Amino acid sequence: MQPLTLINGSATRTLASSDRGFNFGQGVSTRIKVVAGKAQLWRFHMQALQQGCAALGFPINAVDKLVKRDLGILPKADLSLRVTLTAGVGSNSAATPVEYQPTRVLQIEPYNFVEPPVEGVDLWLCETPLSIHPRLAGIKHLNRLEQVLARSEWRDPHIREGVMFDTQGYVIGATASNIFWVQSGQVYTPDLSQAGVAGVMRAALLERAGQLGIEVHSVRARLADLEAADELFVTNAFDGVMAVKACAQKQYAVGSGTLTQKLRTELAQVLYD
Amino acid sequence: MQPLTLINGSATRTLASSDRGFNFGQGVSTRIKVVAGKAQLWRFHMQALQQGCAALGFPINAVDKLVKRDLGILPKADLSLRVTLTAGVGSNSAATPVEYQPTRVLQIEPYNFVEPPVEGVDLWLCETPLSIHPRLAGIKHLNRLEQVLARSEWRDPHIREGVMFDTQGYVIGATASNIFWVQSGQVYTPDLSQAGVAGVMRAALLERAGQLGIEVHSVRARLADLEAADELFVTNAFDGVMAVKACAQKQYAVGSGTLTQKLRTELAQVLYD
Repeated sequence: MQPLTLINGSATRTLASSDRGFNFGQGVSTRIKVVAGKAQLWRFHMQALQQGCAALGFPINAVDKLVKRDLGILPKADLSLRVTLTAGVGSNSAATPVEYQPTRVLQIEPYNFVEPPVEGVDLWLCETPLSIHPRLAGIKHLNRLEQVLARSEWRDPHIREGVMFDTQGYVIGATASNIFWVQSGQVYTPDLSQAGVAGVMRAALLERAGQLGIEVHSVRARLADLEAADELFVTNAFDGVMAVKACAQKQYAVGSGTLTQKLRTELAQVLYD
Repeated sequence: MQPLTLINGSATRTLASSDRGFNFGQGVSTRIKVVAGKAQLWRFHMQALQQGCAALGFPINAVDKLVKRDLGILPKADLSLRVTLTAGVGSNSAATPVEYQPTRVLQIEPYNFVEPPVEGVDLWLCETPLSIHPRLAGIKHLNRLEQVLARSEWRDPHIREGVMFDTQGYVIGATASNIFWVQSGQVYTPDLSQAGVAGVMRAALLERAGQLGIEVHSVRARLADLEAADELFVTNAFDGVMAVKACAQKQYAVGSGTLTQKLRTELAQVLYD
């Protein structure tokens, strides 16, 4: 199929230049993996959008129904579906208008999925920090300059992702993924109450781990904590649970017998729940 | 005249939905006051755009010539001219493409200028903080959610602006203005090396004050410092130097004999230099 963009349900590739998503970044987005026409982690994606809009001052009712109505039936293809919701066309003033008509943008593109290598990937350590802002922390809003600058720090195609720290030096995540590590059989992930994005695969992992009786400790950690870990992995909606083999001279355990692999297998079973 | 939008020199009101300005906020903007067809603080606006693009990873040569060529001759009207430059249409990946074609958006609207009241205005104290990010500090980029949330804290039309603090409690500026205060004949303004936007009127004021031999101290200050001040004023490209009469129960000196008024008069003389 050809790439397709739907704006408020209509096939068009253009957006009003006065959209508040453009002028201020007042919007949220999520990118959904669609395999053979079936969307993965739908419930988590819709929940993230719903909560994000409300937090940014433009609550929308029943986001899932709106997006489903736009979509109709997805072709039985492998697709990337990016859904963006903004506060709509509005004044040039920063104040959110009392009356607003949100804009829905669906970008649907064919996607050739490549499984992450079983031997694990390499990570970069980003210098660009993530800023601390408790009110915006966790939301996948459109103010993504920090990730853009961080992702531009390396061009080596062998490096898959980059670890990001907040301005106080705490590990928060990666440029487009969340991060987890295993030490002495315990699973850890950064506390996201101050900075960062709480991705949908992270949410799914936390839920699944809870069902399996595996506690995931949400902690404030520094680089030294990653260096002390036995396993390291990153998660996102497209790569699932992706094992890390090396980061900053440190090698990590990968493959059979690791908790990373166990969680990867477990997650793969709940992608359509 | 009717509102007019030019995108890359063409009259159109729509933008590609895959523009990096929309997807990531990878762009800068500035809003220029045009009086009877003459743009104010042109040199400062163009310098801000030029520096901003470079800092965000998409340097553009001779921004001033590009924008001037788009404009042709401005009608002899009072206008608001918003210029936005983005990294252009690009991939969904956060990494800035090596090859990019920046997008220029000019939004030209009739504008009915109203002089700020001579008796001064009231300010709100915003709860929404500004995050600390030295690499992005000072730039008027498109990641403006913090200002949007802060501006939504009050609806009282008598309150003209809101003071914003960084996440450590230091005064940084207002939602769409910079802030200055006078104590014992000395002029102060917040240090913007960690957070905030360095506006064009602020830049013009610093230059003019220097020419007049008035030192402006760039400092890390808290609310208590504002409360201890004799005069308080905010600056932006549209209202110039705007005296503040009250903020958080504290009253400030306004009118004749104040340094605020002297600077207001001085600035009015250099708007077209």
